[in-house]
Amino acid sequence: MTKSSSVDLVTNTDQKVEQLIIAAVKEKFPTHSFIGEESVAGGEPCILTDNPTWIIDPVDGTTNFVHGFPFVAVSIGFAVNKELEIGVVYSCVEDKMYTGRKGKGAYCNGEKLEVSDRKDMKKSMIISELGSNRDPEIVSKIFSTMQKILCIPVHGLRGSGTAATNMCLVASGAVEAFFEIGIHCWDIAAGAVIVTEAGGVLMDVNGGPFDLMSRRMVSANNKTIADNIIKQIEIFPAERDDAVKQ
Amino acid sequence: MTKSSSVDLVTNTDQKVEQLIIAAVKEKFPTHSFIGEESVAGGEPCILTDNPTWIIDPVDGTTNFVHGFPFVAVSIGFAVNKELEIGVVYSCVEDKMYTGRKGKGAYCNGEKLEVSDRKDMKKSMIISELGSNRDPEIVSKIFSTMQKILCIPVHGLRGSGTAATNMCLVASGAVEAFFEIGIHCWDIAAGAVIVTEAGGVLMDVNGGPFDLMSRRMVSANNKTIADNIIKQIEIFPAERDDAVKQ
Repeated sequence: MTKSSSVDLVTNTDQKVEQLIIAAVKEKFPTHSFIGEESVAGGEPCILTDNPTWIIDPVDGTTNFVHGFPFVAVSIGFAVNKELEIGVVYSCVEDKMYTGRKGKGAYCNGEKLEVSDRKDMKKSMIISELGSNRDPEIVSKIFSTMQKILCIPVHGLRGSGTAATNMCLVASGAVEAFFEIGIHCWDIAAGAVIVTEAGGVLMDVNGGPFDLMSRRMVSANNKTIADNIIKQIEIFPAERDDAVKQ
Repeated sequence: MTKSSSVDLVTNTDQKVEQLIIAAVKEKFPTHSFIGEESVAGGEPCILTDNPTWIIDPVDGTTNFVHGFPFVAVSIGFAVNKELEIGVVYSCVEDKMYTGRKGKGAYCNGEKLEVSDRKDMKKSMIISELGSNRDPEIVSKIFSTMQKILCIPVHGLRGSGTAATNMCLVASGAVEAFFEIGIHCWDIAAGAVIVTEAGGVLMDVNGGPFDLMSRRMVSANNKTIADNIIKQIEIFPAERDDAVKQ
């Protein structure tokens, strides 16, 4: 089925996995709150409160999942007092379990993760996504940003089709940075903990502090690379995840 | 080290793997010819003759290999009388062995491969690469082509960073098409057999017949998708692999 556009896909699997996760957590923690991609699509509120909250993307990379492209992830973040505390991303086809806990480090299948130590943009690899928006004006800005970054020049630009996996690739040092405008809190909540705990930085695309509900983010191995990326980004508007629907 | 530009990388591993493969084949087939990426970089001729010829990319996706991005492949094609007969692509990190033999089908780890049966571009996923050319005019054409394809709209655009793997993704149905201008014969010789034997088509970017040495190609699940891609491609010049060097 489709959601916001003909290229914004959702499957029964997305909905079933989300129900499964929420039911399992509710049994143990009946007072906790949930923000799940499919619950929000179904009309549930998308507001982060101080209550312990699980932020869930049951299938990140649904388009990949539909096509059989080998990057699909389950992403679960956990916040208390609006602060992210725990993140888990399971990259299903690769069978990689990424975990991060505030102050305790980040791991992949038990192995400690560390971001790359590169500071030279010209030796960096950057990952981003074209997203599911097909508004010509927005698409032009996305391509223009990518072209500017490519021609710095960087070693390469990649796109896996899942934000959660992209953040884990930053955390594991395979790429120096991942940035995107248009992502949702459930795409990046878990990855945010994993990147930070692997030694990376999170920022807003305008250089300000990272805001989970703002639908925009730069995650990088260090501030030098993040600042360089930020200089190239052509910002376009994306309605906040917690905007009150009329 | 770098080759044609600061973003065209090569490592000792590329050179050692190529030497290993050529030495092993030569022992069994002393009269055969070889076209290897690193031998050509070292000054060997890049001419396809009627003699049985092994066309080798020891590490396809060297930039990925340097960064630890999880798509790296060894690609070996085999041609007789200038016709491709056998292709083998080993995607190392995924541990996937893709094989194809003319008239005998294509396989991945022993499982038969079949291209996707989609004919609707609007439900397709396309894969391509930005390449290692950073000439602003060429980069603009590459991005312009991608933007036109994205806005058809298609489900998504991906890039793994290796042409050999991209062709195997066409063969296995994960994407409908892979196209690129600027690739070399060693990037696609093996993949060409694998895609064809999985039921796919190979064409030139101008709609004519595929030419292994021309440095340009559209590989797709069927002619409908290939023709659609060809309509969008902004062609730019790339010197043939078999151009006689002055």
